[in-house]
Amino acid sequence: MSNAHDMKGSLIFGAAYYEEYLPCDRLEKDMQMMKEAGINTIRIAESTWSVEEPRPGEYDFSHVDRVIDAAEKYGLNVIVGTPTYAVPHWLVQLDPDVLAETAQGKNRFGPRQNMDITNPTYRHYAEGIIRALVSHTAGRPNVIGFQIDNETKHYGVCGKRILGLFQEWMKKRYSSIEQVNKALGLNYWSGSVTSFEDLPDPTGTINGSYACEFEIFRRSLAEEFLVWQSDIVKQYSRPDQFITQNFDFQWKSFGAPGQQDGYSFGVQPDICHYDASRAVTLMGTDIYCFDQDALTGREIAFGGDLIRSVRQENYLVLESQAQAFKDWLPYPGQLRQMAWSHVASGACGVMYWNWYSLHNGLESYWKGILSHDFEPNPTYLEVKETGEELRRLGSALSCLRKENRIALVVSSEALSAMDRFPTDKELCYNDIVHWIYDALYKLNLECDVIFDKEKDWDRYDLLIFPELYCVREEVISHVRTFVENGGTVFASFRSFFADEHCKIWHDRQPHDLTDVFGMTYNQYTRPVNVTVDGREASYWMELLKPEGAETKASYQHKYWGSYAALTRNAFGKGHAWYLGTMVPEDQLQEYLLEAAADAGILPETDLRYPLICRNAADKDGSSIHFLFNYSSEDQSIACPWNGEDLLTGKQFAKGQSLSLPDWGVVILKENTDD
Amino acid sequence: MSNAHDMKGSLIFGAAYYEEYLPCDRLEKDMQMMKEAGINTIRIAESTWSVEEPRPGEYDFSHVDRVIDAAEKYGLNVIVGTPTYAVPHWLVQLDPDVLAETAQGKNRFGPRQNMDITNPTYRHYAEGIIRALVSHTAGRPNVIGFQIDNETKHYGVCGKRILGLFQEWMKKRYSSIEQVNKALGLNYWSGSVTSFEDLPDPTGTINGSYACEFEIFRRSLAEEFLVWQSDIVKQYSRPDQFITQNFDFQWKSFGAPGQQDGYSFGVQPDICHYDASRAVTLMGTDIYCFDQDALTGREIAFGGDLIRSVRQENYLVLESQAQAFKDWLPYPGQLRQMAWSHVASGACGVMYWNWYSLHNGLESYWKGILSHDFEPNPTYLEVKETGEELRRLGSALSCLRKENRIALVVSSEALSAMDRFPTDKELCYNDIVHWIYDALYKLNLECDVIFDKEKDWDRYDLLIFPELYCVREEVISHVRTFVENGGTVFASFRSFFADEHCKIWHDRQPHDLTDVFGMTYNQYTRPVNVTVDGREASYWMELLKPEGAETKASYQHKYWGSYAALTRNAFGKGHAWYLGTMVPEDQLQEYLLEAAADAGILPETDLRYPLICRNAADKDGSSIHFLFNYSSEDQSIACPWNGEDLLTGKQFAKGQSLSLPDWGVVILKENTDD
Amino acid sequence: MSNAHDMKGSLIFGAAYYEEYLPCDRLEKDMQMMKEAGINTIRIAESTWSVEEPRPGEYDFSHVDRVIDAAEKYGLNVIVGTPTYAVPHWLVQLDPDVLAETAQGKNRFGPRQNMDITNPTYRHYAEGIIRALVSHTAGRPNVIGFQIDNETKHYGVCGKRILGLFQEWMKKRYSSIEQVNKALGLNYWSGSVTSFEDLPDPTGTINGSYACEFEIFRRSLAEEFLVWQSDIVKQYSRPDQFITQNFDFQWKSFGAPGQQDGYSFGVQPDICHYDASRAVTLMGTDIYCFDQDALTGREIAFGGDLIRSVRQENYLVLESQAQAFKDWLPYPGQLRQMAWSHVASGACGVMYWNWYSLHNGLESYWKGILSHDFEPNPTYLEVKETGEELRRLGSALSCLRKENRIALVVSSEALSAMDRFPTDKELCYNDIVHWIYDALYKLNLECDVIFDKEKDWDRYDLLIFPELYCVREEVISHVRTFVENGGTVFASFRSFFADEHCKIWHDRQPHDLTDVFGMTYNQYTRPVNVTVDGREASYWMELLKPEGAETKASYQHKYWGSYAALTRNAFGKGHAWYLGTMVPEDQLQEYLLEAAADAGILPETDLRYPLICRNAADKDGSSIHFLFNYSSEDQSIACPWNGEDLLTGKQFAKGQSLSLPDWGVVILKENTDD
Repeated sequence: MSNAHDMKGSLIFGAAYYEEYLPCDRLEKDMQMMKEAGINTIRIAESTWSVEEPRPGEYDFSHVDRVIDAAEKYGLNVIVGTPTYAVPHWLVQLDPDVLAETAQGKNRFGPRQNMDITNPTYRHYAEGIIRALVSHTAGRPNVIGFQIDNETKHYGVCGKRILGLFQEWMKKRYSSIEQVNKALGLNYWSGSVTSFEDLPDPTGTINGSYACEFEIFRRSLAEEFLVWQSDIVKQYSRPDQFITQNFDFQWKSFGAPGQQDGYSFGVQPDICHYDASRAVTLMGTDIYCFDQDALTGREIAFGGDLIRSVRQENYLVLESQAQAFKDWLPYPGQLRQMAWSHVASGACGVMYWNWYSLHNGLESYWKGILSHDFEPNPTYLEVKETGEELRRLGSALSCLRKENRIALVVSSEALSAMDRFPTDKELCYNDIVHWIYDALYKLNLECDVIFDKEKDWDRYDLLIFPELYCVREEVISHVRTFVENGGTVFASFRSFFADEHCKIWHDRQPHDLTDVFGMTYNQYTRPVNVTVDGREASYWMELLKPEGAETKASYQHKYWGSYAALTRNAFGKGHAWYLGTMVPEDQLQEYLLEAAADAGILPETDLRYPLICRNAADKDGSSIHFLFNYSSEDQSIACPWNGEDLLTGKQFAKGQSLSLPDWGVVILKENTDD
Repeated sequence: MSNAHDMKGSLIFGAAYYEEYLPCDRLEKDMQMMKEAGINTIRIAESTWSVEEPRPGEYDFSHVDRVIDAAEKYGLNVIVGTPTYAVPHWLVQLDPDVLAETAQGKNRFGPRQNMDITNPTYRHYAEGIIRALVSHTAGRPNVIGFQIDNETKHYGVCGKRILGLFQEWMKKRYSSIEQVNKALGLNYWSGSVTSFEDLPDPTGTINGSYACEFEIFRRSLAEEFLVWQSDIVKQYSRPDQFITQNFDFQWKSFGAPGQQDGYSFGVQPDICHYDASRAVTLMGTDIYCFDQDALTGREIAFGGDLIRSVRQENYLVLESQAQAFKDWLPYPGQLRQMAWSHVASGACGVMYWNWYSLHNGLESYWKGILSHDFEPNPTYLEVKETGEELRRLGSALSCLRKENRIALVVSSEALSAMDRFPTDKELCYNDIVHWIYDALYKLNLECDVIFDKEKDWDRYDLLIFPELYCVREEVISHVRTFVENGGTVFASFRSFFADEHCKIWHDRQPHDLTDVFGMTYNQYTRPVNVTVDGREASYWMELLKPEGAETKASYQHKYWGSYAALTRNAFGKGHAWYLGTMVPEDQLQEYLLEAAADAGILPETDLRYPLICRNAADKDGSSIHFLFNYSSEDQSIACPWNGEDLLTGKQFAKGQSLSLPDWGVVILKENTDD
Repeated sequence: MSNAHDMKGSLIFGAAYYEEYLPCDRLEKDMQMMKEAGINTIRIAESTWSVEEPRPGEYDFSHVDRVIDAAEKYGLNVIVGTPTYAVPHWLVQLDPDVLAETAQGKNRFGPRQNMDITNPTYRHYAEGIIRALVSHTAGRPNVIGFQIDNETKHYGVCGKRILGLFQEWMKKRYSSIEQVNKALGLNYWSGSVTSFEDLPDPTGTINGSYACEFEIFRRSLAEEFLVWQSDIVKQYSRPDQFITQNFDFQWKSFGAPGQQDGYSFGVQPDICHYDASRAVTLMGTDIYCFDQDALTGREIAFGGDLIRSVRQENYLVLESQAQAFKDWLPYPGQLRQMAWSHVASGACGVMYWNWYSLHNGLESYWKGILSHDFEPNPTYLEVKETGEELRRLGSALSCLRKENRIALVVSSEALSAMDRFPTDKELCYNDIVHWIYDALYKLNLECDVIFDKEKDWDRYDLLIFPELYCVREEVISHVRTFVENGGTVFASFRSFFADEHCKIWHDRQPHDLTDVFGMTYNQYTRPVNVTVDGREASYWMELLKPEGAETKASYQHKYWGSYAALTRNAFGKGHAWYLGTMVPEDQLQEYLLEAAADAGILPETDLRYPLICRNAADKDGSSIHFLFNYSSEDQSIACPWNGEDLLTGKQFAKGQSLSLPDWGVVILKENTDD
């Protein structure tokens, strides 16, 4: 794991900055306050198209220039974002079809990300502003990189033109329309067709296979759009300037409809991070998490583990919260803790959204470091304290490498399939992913989060499959070989159930893996008053029939008692676990610990959540252990290693008592000489 | 009660079969497995239009032929379904208006039942495929009948053309537009018009009378469509071939939106089974019910009682579940119990939907007898056991006659009215119907479920009216005569409140029946902290004022205490009961038992749910008593009759101990000689 | 406070009457029954356009004439309503754009209030029917006034034409488009434009400032429409005939979707009562309230306090409930109590909606005084009893004056802003308004409810600001001056936060009032496990930092404990209170009592809800005290004054025991001689 863009031995610390939205002239004052807070980078320009091009072809970069100038004066670096995700009204007036059609109807003007990213008029003017802006700024010494667009996705675009593109795409993917009929089972309910041109608009389809195919296509549109932008930017950018994107996650809201609150929840449905990563030279991401009593670090860890694993490189957190809407106002210490949590996951820097709180518009309450009054406030003061620490330890903690032996395998295709065939009305794919991820996280069993498209599994000893519903044959044989060669796998219910077209296999489940798992099943039901090892089973239960596997747990129920709930099979040199139902998290933890033991993996420490330990190696190969106390209670632990707390310089011997105050952090550099 | 189509002294046992959707060639193997399971009939072809006519006018019945050939080889009978409920994409391309407009907008291509059944293009091509398919198959000896379309309804069709048809229909129904204005009270809120052509689209109306009139019209469209199909089929079918339809019920879902789970809940809103029955020669139906701990038999009994009562004939269960989605996986014994429950209600056969679990499409999880792996599974094995029993007792238990003395009177019009003026936001019409039906069912008081259009009430001694809100004068006088002549009636709140135009009567309620019930009222309210006989009253309370009637129960409340809740009146030779509020089911049971006693009806046995007794007479006039244990606990009862358990051949004397194991069945042929 | 239209020394008592909707000829009988019940006024004609003009330009006022004739015969007065809120179908056929476009799409024909009130075709025919009807009836002696339209609002109209009108309106409001961009912060997300014609349709906007501006514009459309109607009516009406409108309130439903149940909840979002009052000569209103155990009188008091305060005049309750849908059937005494509650708030009369229960249409269950059977019922009998009392005391209790020293300050603009930026997903603006209003009401601290546009604050000693979110600078300085001069203010959280464009102030909060309140804050959050004075804080908490103010209460919480929750500051000659969080109602009451004491205001009595005291002065200046027992329990109190109960003629000495039976009323005329 290595990265060209890690700020030459320091950590990026920054914020988004919108000089264009300011209600008064604050530029110099803002730069001063940032500088004093240890901020070394700002991100500008994305979203401000109407200011930069008030009329078609009439460019005005005076705001951009002002900010870059001021940043230069105060020694701040700048990331310039292309403003293409918020279209000006004149563009919609030129061509109303710039606004995307979606399954809910034609989009209205007003929100961002309301456009059809394939629309030719949109592309024409987007190309114009990208070329103008990047050529205008690429020569500035303090511009260290470009962000292309913002949180790019396909935005649910559909309609006649998109259907035409989809039909073209299908033609390339399938040799004949008969093959399409067969692969996607279109015969069902009179859905078969006789030509590619006859393929219907998938937005109305009741055929999950056809619907999921369309989702794959739409994700490819978002990917193609980013690659297109990237190729334009590269014509102007310097070799030392990175190109990045803030890949974001499935969002889960908890507030009023129309409000923007929520958090970074899981695998993104509307673009495939794995595929789209080819558009950037530095992986970037947005991670928003709970705070106050609900801060656990799990959103930071999950997001980081996924984004890092895509390329096994350090990544940049382009957006994270300072304070935001009423739910997010960190307790003292939490802001600092969050920043170090990002670094502990492999981030090469942390940037806030945003510097100051906007005075109107949708995000008025999605605040900034500064509140609306621009005064120094507790949040700003803690940013300052954190900035000082990051500056001080930047050299020691940049370019951290993480080498996990466990991987959680996720899939955009399984996510789409679970939208069509949910395990329960209360559950989506990411609920299952987090059910397992969180259990690992709380055990301090670190993992990579990889896509099933990832070819390199050799680095791992334990692969975990949460509801990996639909996979290519290649993945099936990959699993077989992995176990055969000594690996351990742990699969949840509903894994390996369907092929890549979301068509359920018509032989014994799990498809072509019954010998690997030593088990099969062909019935399942909702568990009602069913227990496993004395604990309630929930939502789904497969009636597993061991064929060679050891029954690790059975169902307790008058009629289902003869079936297994959890099986473990020795196969080749490895082991294969299969869990047929959803058990409580602590029970899952016990099972995962056993499976990890099969893989020769033990938790680094006896610590358990709320005490979290995240590990890495520094540039010199020394072990760095980040210890976090995710609670309001002071904690005292026996130090698990000999080492030095880089934050305080204090030395600890293994076993020595170590204090972790509420929401505290210790960064222990292990002393391996002892 | 008799029927020409009861398979010559045997019971139909079968499944829907979609050879067109198979992912591999399984035809011979499937036939073999069916044969071994005692299956004697398959239902084919419905829904496969695009396979049978891949291009306009280009017919291809090779799949149909293959299946009929194979069935013939294995001695299986075939029901051929017309595929008209799932339109191919080319038909929509020929005429986009084949897709119906509904109040929610224009339908999209994808789902079935999305078409406008009155569209001329649709009718043209539907006629073509019906003629081609029926003429192609009618000569085959093992084709025993045809199913026209599938679960036909009006599908909420509306729009300009439908409005024109509605205006024409109104012209035939009313002598003048002034009569329409008056009958439907269109003056309200400026709704009156001066010509039939001026009648507005009813989808926006706030006039319940106008809206309900439109519902009657739309139900008639579905009826007319079935008669049209039937008339075409009759031009080709043999006299020994039946014509049927799978009339289905109001569906109640309990799962995620877009998922198909749910069960057969009550009276169907979108077609009138009574009126549409004229299109068929054999009544058919779809009945889906809860299973596992929630299996009570009530959905099977209600659906059967309604469909049988329409023509007082045996009927065919064209669809019922084997296993289906995660909620439906029967406990051991339940599948067999369900099959016998259908027979006990008067079914001449039971067919499953469907043979194997589909590998993709909307119904992938609405499984079949076989799971996706096609292997024999516990469900298949129990189907086999059941098939053997049905085969063995087919001759003894075909053509069963049921002669109930109680009828529950339902009404499509009342159902529509209650959609407009619900008793509570938590209640619909069928909730009230089931509140009463279930109470009877659990008392083992068997009843017919008849429509208020039914003219022949003489066969009954007790008529029960759940929320029979809007009725013609004719029904009112029917009630009067019935009681006068010695019958007993039991009416719930809100009965006889409005006329057939859903216009509330402007004289004393219940309209023209105050002498019959010896009671009137003109105020009602929501009961809050009100009890009746010490039990909580819910949702609705009419403040009944007896005028001659006996007060059987009063409200307990500071201000409503002077009003009656339940009244009983002697009128003519009979009795009339009126219940003004919703009481708990067990309290309702007490009231119903008393009313039944007035009608000279006592439950056949002392058994109560979960022990259910359903009675019939066989071809020779012997009494057949089906005893069911709808619980997981073994039960032991005193045998209520002398007789022989046809399943085991064991003789029982009245009073002798009889064991009903969990989910068990005993079919007692009463020995009347003793 | 005085009013020309108070029926010359008597109280109006009446009902809406729709002869057009009757299922039979009842006119004479109805008049008789009304007369007997003490009803002296009926309201007719509104909503019956299709009857009065069955074809374009063809007027037929025979129903109107019949009713006015009969009323004359029985000595009843008539209010004639223009029927313009329910358009006939022919008008929609003439011009489909008469049906408004809204954000949810084009309206359908059927409901009332579905039209675009700015549509020229609509205006043309509306003008025709208004001129014809008013000129036809203005000469009738018993026509005492006209109601223009009904519950007029803007009905969410939008679309291309409305956008054009909005752009014109903006041109008049702003000097340049640059000023618009700046004032509304349109730069945000590429929303800035270069000409007024380029301003986009606001229905899609995510800019709250722009959205709220559009709401102000739309409210002005409703106001303009009423003024337009009023000007036409004035061309025909006599000087002694009043012009009124039934201003209604934000409606809160509790029933099934599509049902009309609910109650008058708070400030109306879709027309500004303050601005629109210029269209009428007599303020009118609709007030619907809970009854039975939920009758508290607060809806009656709030609605009356607001409508009365707009012009400091008596007002007419044009609609209130008798019985209505199943939830509203008053307990004995409640109907009478409600009528006197209206009078106690300053009403010059009470009218019911409506006389009889409609036999079909949407409002069939929104009943009348008479039920559907037209028989005298308990409701009618209590109306009769009430009518007799009102007649007897009409002279004594007409023209009551109320002079409150407290005012609750509300704002249509703050309401719109809170729709965009709600305090919580469970709360809207009116929840906060009622939180405070109800606390005052239950303390028997009477108040006016005034709009922030009201210029005359001098009459008050205590001003209360519930979430007065966005205000003009003028209001800010008004607050400063008010306190400086000795007034007391009490502001809730989120007050004075944004300017009149809904743009958050960028200096210290509360804007320009930090010295007045002696306090500032710049952080807030959701309180979780936070208490204030031992009671739970809810929904919102601002972290107040006193700067001179006294901390009256602090937050109890590990991390927020250093911040104040409630502050009190002496400023000039007055006091300023600020409450940063939502506390339980009884705790709020304690705070309000203290603030009132600062203003020199003590509750008139020690009575607290359910004993409510409402005070006024009669024509002669005597104090009238209305005492209400809003409970089912008889209550006995020490009489707070010497005086006579006008209802019974009984004299009471101060301190003497006075019985208030359940739902009872005493009207005490204070004897000031003692």
